[in-house]
Amino acid sequence: MKLIVIGGVAAGMSAASKLKRINSDAEVVVYEKGTFLSYGACGLPYYVSGENDDYTKMIARTKEQFEAQGMTIHVRHEIVKVVPEKKQVMVKDLDKGNYFLDSYDQLMIATGTIPVVPPFPGKDLANIHVLKTLEDGILLKQVSEKKEIQDVVIVGGGYIGIEVAEAMVRLGKRVRVIELGTRILQTFDQEITDLAEEELRKQGVALTLGEKVESFIGTTSVEKVKTDRGTYPADLVLLSIGVKPATKFLEGSGIALAENGAIIIDREMRTNHADIYAAGDCAQVYHKVMEENRFIPLGTNANKCGRIAGTNLAGGREKYIGTLGSAAIKIFNLELGRTGMSEQDAKDFAIDYTTVTVRSADHPGYYPNQTPIWIKLICEKRTKRILGAQAIGEKGVVLRIDVFAVAIHNNMPADELGMTDLCYAPPFAGVWDAIHIACNAVK
Amino acid sequence: MKLIVIGGVAAGMSAASKLKRINSDAEVVVYEKGTFLSYGACGLPYYVSGENDDYTKMIARTKEQFEAQGMTIHVRHEIVKVVPEKKQVMVKDLDKGNYFLDSYDQLMIATGTIPVVPPFPGKDLANIHVLKTLEDGILLKQVSEKKEIQDVVIVGGGYIGIEVAEAMVRLGKRVRVIELGTRILQTFDQEITDLAEEELRKQGVALTLGEKVESFIGTTSVEKVKTDRGTYPADLVLLSIGVKPATKFLEGSGIALAENGAIIIDREMRTNHADIYAAGDCAQVYHKVMEENRFIPLGTNANKCGRIAGTNLAGGREKYIGTLGSAAIKIFNLELGRTGMSEQDAKDFAIDYTTVTVRSADHPGYYPNQTPIWIKLICEKRTKRILGAQAIGEKGVVLRIDVFAVAIHNNMPADELGMTDLCYAPPFAGVWDAIHIACNAVK
Repeated sequence: MKLIVIGGVAAGMSAASKLKRINSDAEVVVYEKGTFLSYGACGLPYYVSGENDDYTKMIARTKEQFEAQGMTIHVRHEIVKVVPEKKQVMVKDLDKGNYFLDSYDQLMIATGTIPVVPPFPGKDLANIHVLKTLEDGILLKQVSEKKEIQDVVIVGGGYIGIEVAEAMVRLGKRVRVIELGTRILQTFDQEITDLAEEELRKQGVALTLGEKVESFIGTTSVEKVKTDRGTYPADLVLLSIGVKPATKFLEGSGIALAENGAIIIDREMRTNHADIYAAGDCAQVYHKVMEENRFIPLGTNANKCGRIAGTNLAGGREKYIGTLGSAAIKIFNLELGRTGMSEQDAKDFAIDYTTVTVRSADHPGYYPNQTPIWIKLICEKRTKRILGAQAIGEKGVVLRIDVFAVAIHNNMPADELGMTDLCYAPPFAGVWDAIHIACNAVK
Repeated sequence: MKLIVIGGVAAGMSAASKLKRINSDAEVVVYEKGTFLSYGACGLPYYVSGENDDYTKMIARTKEQFEAQGMTIHVRHEIVKVVPEKKQVMVKDLDKGNYFLDSYDQLMIATGTIPVVPPFPGKDLANIHVLKTLEDGILLKQVSEKKEIQDVVIVGGGYIGIEVAEAMVRLGKRVRVIELGTRILQTFDQEITDLAEEELRKQGVALTLGEKVESFIGTTSVEKVKTDRGTYPADLVLLSIGVKPATKFLEGSGIALAENGAIIIDREMRTNHADIYAAGDCAQVYHKVMEENRFIPLGTNANKCGRIAGTNLAGGREKYIGTLGSAAIKIFNLELGRTGMSEQDAKDFAIDYTTVTVRSADHPGYYPNQTPIWIKLICEKRTKRILGAQAIGEKGVVLRIDVFAVAIHNNMPADELGMTDLCYAPPFAGVWDAIHIACNAVK
């Protein structure tokens, strides 16, 4: 049995490793377009900021380590075509420039995403960056460290944009985030993003919301960003508008893609072609609360789905239990977390829902350094079943969202979680925890 | 309808308040033996240590606030007898010394516990204290602040003993904990307590384990503690051996008590007598994993069960969903949490179980200040259902135990929690969280 893996970061290497653990005789050939394998791309903003000054720490395992497991690894090799009928892929060696064919018994597609870069005039000026790969991160850090880089404009207020905004403030830059929407971090609801925006502004980040970038101006390097409402100085631009599945090479292959290009898979990571599996950011993922496939490109899903793909490539029949869209971000002194449906999701799914937003605290006032926590819950109205939870605060926020994640995973109603026996000790929580208080406020 | 509440701290005032919120016409008369109502006794060690220098912060609501809700409150009044047949209680006014009768339609017993004080010779010497009530805390703090108090011996290495040990170190005392058992904090298993003991010793606390206190030696004040193996200097002694239900006044009343004196109640907080309810530390509590009543005197249960009693006193039929014995403690730089069954519990219940103890980390190494977390899981062998979880580490431990609490509450198997979508961001968690890693290590 020969498995070809396309893409050697999260889902691909998870699948390959799992398969090898189950069946050490399996032949595994990995083609990775980039130079690095198996790295934690979510760590990139902290490498750029200097909080981590060694990028090799982000690499979970090296080429040599995978080779020691008996895999054949080709970095700087891109797959340009898949021919399911012949069980062949066409490979481009990016360094030599030549093409060749390789054959598989099973194929695992895990190519991830590429950053969306609209055809803005001036987009090819120097000092306009994206941050997706480790190579991008190394480059962005090099440029950011230059003293002459003073004004940084970040286009797009999603997770990466906001994390890099913080990194740039740490590096002493003047930072502006330009976001097309009226709010940043739109997987969160407004009650939460209002507080996040307040923190960013307090820390000196200029937020330019509801403006559309039209072009970049400069001679060789970018100098200004022009929007539909203004022009802003920029020595460095990060384009963090969003990502799209890296699946263009699959067009015409017969492998079914969703409208946005994400590979359609079932809960066992199977595509519509026998012996072709996919997982990670290039594919859809089953959402447990929405009960349907979604495009939610997050490393959590990629790692879990990759591992399941590996089990199934080895002959297993494991199904992914489903994502909750759980995600977290640190913004200066604040933690933010979310899981399940947002209020907008509940509207989109035509659910009769109710919400509460409650301000409580991480622990009782009779222990030092109490800090506030805001929790928003989205519940099914009739049953009080928790559909989604979001929170923001200085301490103990993200792990409380994990508590909600497990509750949502188990279809718990808010009033039941409101009576569940959580830990109490003054340094950590009140006798009624912030979780209980939010749940018991649901009417 | 007239409700008499015996005991005005956690369960009693939770019940009274809930009843009043549902039925504002209900007549509520509270008899509290002490001076203070409705306080967070778990905050006492932090008052003694000086981390909180205002004991009124521990008082959730005052006598005047409850009176404003329309309740009649008598502090310094002790119930000495209950006569269910006549629906009467005999009350002792502790200040005046006189006795009188009062009649009820419904009775709520919430007298909590009293510290166990064995008849050690010398136990009545000055500077031998217990720490149960707010009054105890005020007194202990006054004595501890004296410069001449240098050697502090704590008898009993449970939650209170260990928290006070830390408080005394903060006050600059030489501190020794004498524990009859071979380990401290015996609701935790040895893998966890070994690390806790190491931390205590590192912080200068002498741990004298497996020794039995025999007597206290001194002229007016305590000077030495004599055990079966040695004699230790002591200017101050805290007796934190354990607690027993404060139910002696119920003997002969016909209200059913367990062997240890805890009031036997059902999941609706009803005793064996119509119209007599009980909750909190004086009573048993239903354990969700053990599926039977236990004596687990914790404020968490007291508050929840008190609230449910209030609902049911108002005519409701709400059942407590059950405790998990979730508990947490901070020991200097470490957090400890536990929920569900310990390994000893699993043995006692003759369960075919398996355990894992895994060391992982609070977040990835590519974000600064990574700290280790040890997690022990106790699972049913056949199904991998999680029966209990315990953890220790510097950060993010207790809230992770809450995640396990919700998982155990929902009867989740370890392999399912190992694939549940928890939050990932470098400052908070790895893409495979410490929770996942522990769960996926269960064989």
